[in-house]
Amino acid sequence: MTEHTVKAYGEELDSLAADIARMGGIAESMVADSVASIIKRDAALARSVVERDPRVDTIQRDVERKILRVFALRQPMARDLRETLSALKLANDIERIGDLAKNIAKRTLVLHEDEPIALARGVERMGRIAAINLQQVLDAYSAREVRRAVNVWFQDEELDEHYNSVFRELLTYMMEDPRTIGPCAHLLFIAKNIERIGDHCTNMAEIIHFLITGEEMATERPKAEDALSVRIAPPEPKEG
Amino acid sequence: MTEHTVKAYGEELDSLAADIARMGGIAESMVADSVASIIKRDAALARSVVERDPRVDTIQRDVERKILRVFALRQPMARDLRETLSALKLANDIERIGDLAKNIAKRTLVLHEDEPIALARGVERMGRIAAINLQQVLDAYSAREVRRAVNVWFQDEELDEHYNSVFRELLTYMMEDPRTIGPCAHLLFIAKNIERIGDHCTNMAEIIHFLITGEEMATERPKAEDALSVRIAPPEPKEG
Repeated sequence: MTEHTVKAYGEELDSLAADIARMGGIAESMVADSVASIIKRDAALARSVVERDPRVDTIQRDVERKILRVFALRQPMARDLRETLSALKLANDIERIGDLAKNIAKRTLVLHEDEPIALARGVERMGRIAAINLQQVLDAYSAREVRRAVNVWFQDEELDEHYNSVFRELLTYMMEDPRTIGPCAHLLFIAKNIERIGDHCTNMAEIIHFLITGEEMATERPKAEDALSVRIAPPEPKEG
Repeated sequence: MTEHTVKAYGEELDSLAADIARMGGIAESMVADSVASIIKRDAALARSVVERDPRVDTIQRDVERKILRVFALRQPMARDLRETLSALKLANDIERIGDLAKNIAKRTLVLHEDEPIALARGVERMGRIAAINLQQVLDAYSAREVRRAVNVWFQDEELDEHYNSVFRELLTYMMEDPRTIGPCAHLLFIAKNIERIGDHCTNMAEIIHFLITGEEMATERPKAEDALSVRIAPPEPKEG
């Protein structure tokens, strides 16, 4: 293998990592802006989030093509193999995050007209946490810093707790005032989408841990009480 | 490379395909049973679905380890490379489907006590379609039959249409009778989980198409009208 070939191979791996960083940057902006558009009622911002999504999809397909090429021509081993497989998996998670942010933005467009802002506060708070987690896990990837990845993994628990309380809160609003059922149903899905963005950040943290250390993350994170098990009684009929 | 090594390599690829088939079989049973438990109110059945999920996760991790080994030792090319990468991606989709079926089963456990059965009919219908799509896409993989994979891909549109009508129906129930808000919120999520199972079947169909033909599926499937855009007015107050 000539010096030139070796250099080109290194460049191919660098270009994969750069693709992941670029996808990550776009997804990061999509999450932050879709969350901002929940409260701001900024339809133009929400639409711009939707418009950014095809770019993420395109880069993901590029990444997959490049990886096929790397496998076919380079037969990567050891750390290079981990770099390549991690890029494939991270691209998958980031594409899903872009999709979820797009869905959030679409729902905020439906919400904008008549939903009372108070309903959306808890959801927006969740969204801000998820946006920070995404930013940090992307930082961990760029810096190849395992400690930061592990942090994100632990922070996801906070997001799960928020999700459970937002779920209860929204159901209570719906029972108190049936006119809020439509918007609250959309907010329930937005909350769920944010929770799933958090899950993808957790996945990414695990991938980065494996990439850097060559070992799977061993810890079993305690799951917060599950919103699945929430049972809410309808409010007592008011006297009058 | 000796005859022996070549044979072992072929066996490794076969064993990957067998793992995918086994995971697929478990996930198929989980989807069918979680859907059946929606109407049957069979808590034991729902719990057995939850208990099957760790097995799917374990096989997925096995698949990933085997694939790392194949890449490291065999440097697969062409069709073998497609087999290997497809197994990695299919395992990922099937693991997600198992997770979604587990979530459906958990929610049906919450629903069982007091939800009027009529509310769940539409959701159950969706579930049966999703179960069939999963079965067919797994058949397409086993038989390496591209036509059947393409069929599943088209059938997903029907599932999307069902999802949109179920979404409207559930919101209407909630508005008519606030006591149904709790169970209907869980049914909304069950419906969404089923719709996502359908999406994963569509992904799998695309992966199988690529595996067999070496080319990406080109067609752009027309998306049914999106439940995201549904706006439902609260029912008129009744006179009396």
